[in-house]
Amino acid sequence: MTSNSSVTASILVIGDEILSGRTKDKNIGYIAEHLMTMGIEVREVRIVPDVEAEIVAGVDALRHRYDYVFTTGGIGPTHDDITADSIAKAFGVPIAEDPRAIELLLQRIKPEDLNEARRRMARIPDGAELVQNPVSKAPGFMIGNVIVMAGVPSIMQAMLDDVTPRLKTGTPLTIETVDALGLPEGAYATPLATVAQAFPGASIGSYPSFRDGTFHNQIVVRARDPQQAAAAKQQILAALAELPGARAIS
Amino acid sequence: MTSNSSVTASILVIGDEILSGRTKDKNIGYIAEHLMTMGIEVREVRIVPDVEAEIVAGVDALRHRYDYVFTTGGIGPTHDDITADSIAKAFGVPIAEDPRAIELLLQRIKPEDLNEARRRMARIPDGAELVQNPVSKAPGFMIGNVIVMAGVPSIMQAMLDDVTPRLKTGTPLTIETVDALGLPEGAYATPLATVAQAFPGASIGSYPSFRDGTFHNQIVVRARDPQQAAAAKQQILAALAELPGARAIS
Repeated sequence: MTSNSSVTASILVIGDEILSGRTKDKNIGYIAEHLMTMGIEVREVRIVPDVEAEIVAGVDALRHRYDYVFTTGGIGPTHDDITADSIAKAFGVPIAEDPRAIELLLQRIKPEDLNEARRRMARIPDGAELVQNPVSKAPGFMIGNVIVMAGVPSIMQAMLDDVTPRLKTGTPLTIETVDALGLPEGAYATPLATVAQAFPGASIGSYPSFRDGTFHNQIVVRARDPQQAAAAKQQILAALAELPGARAIS
Repeated sequence: MTSNSSVTASILVIGDEILSGRTKDKNIGYIAEHLMTMGIEVREVRIVPDVEAEIVAGVDALRHRYDYVFTTGGIGPTHDDITADSIAKAFGVPIAEDPRAIELLLQRIKPEDLNEARRRMARIPDGAELVQNPVSKAPGFMIGNVIVMAGVPSIMQAMLDDVTPRLKTGTPLTIETVDALGLPEGAYATPLATVAQAFPGASIGSYPSFRDGTFHNQIVVRARDPQQAAAAKQQILAALAELPGARAIS
């Protein structure tokens, strides 16, 4: 792994309840921040309904394009949980009850309660590695570069921890945040563009938020080279401080 | 418009800050819930970075597939705001400063402050209709079936209100929520699947959440026909109440 290596990822969120707005997703930002500390960059996210053709199309579009695809949702025992079967279809492999997964389920479920529906949670595509779920036992899995996780945030987070040591890592980005000194974006956009052009190895973004009738802006510098990030930050701060209306740098 | 008409939509979220997890998206759920009341169903969401080729590919994939595409983000004055130009490219139309947009900007910005960067916010693709922004004036726009909005939630919401009367509407889905009477999903998955099969016109989902070491589950029925939704709800409740361990129906 070279010091400038970049590992890429995408997230496929599966679930009608996210698309309808009923459930507000809490996983995308969590996964992105977790992966970023390991130098893995999330480059695309898709949210698709509980429809096999949509899941297959989504995972196929993403798995050929990024180093990893993380899916969330659709691995429970009910009829609308069709993620595992859809992933098997995308990979063109058989899917069957996995004895390792049955063993895990039996750590939480009494043998007499292990009905047909619950056994569905042990259906794992051929060739997949299990991803442990210390919260409620029903496992996720990893097949090729696709990691299949639960949608419930606490369970997803535990699964992400379990799979983390198996992932290849890159060079974490250095991120520098610059307060815009009370200036509106329109006041500093031109000098900021000049700094951005001077640092082609850095990605520089300006992020407004709007409270109490006023914009409160921050500028974020991301670069693989920490020295580039620090130098860009200094140039931005210097450029901002020269503008009329800028607060003193605290 | 027939009583069973379905109008579809997709959302394209544009921004490195969402993909990095730095900013947690608050727009997807809001747009989905707003559109649902009008009978417009969000069927797919994509989140892409501030990269022209990704924005163009995303909008082109979605606009041919769904009745509407709503984009958020990337219409400010800074160098990383490239949404308007990318949309023009996707539609193959020229883009230029729009006198109507300049006029709106001048309602908030003094003429001497209308610098080159701020004028960028008046760049509108040829043939687009403006979408008003009562919060900070810089407009969004609608071109073909694509509605381009700001990423800041309060501004996005105001733009969505402005564009709403121009959208075609469908029959709103009737949504019935059934508390799972304290039962785990694995206990009711099989009877629930039977009800789902009996109501092919309804979409029935089971949504677990996990708190204090226990699952708290809800079942949601969505149907365009309110009678179907009510009947499915009744059958689900009756099936749940028969199961061992079910709480009394309150």
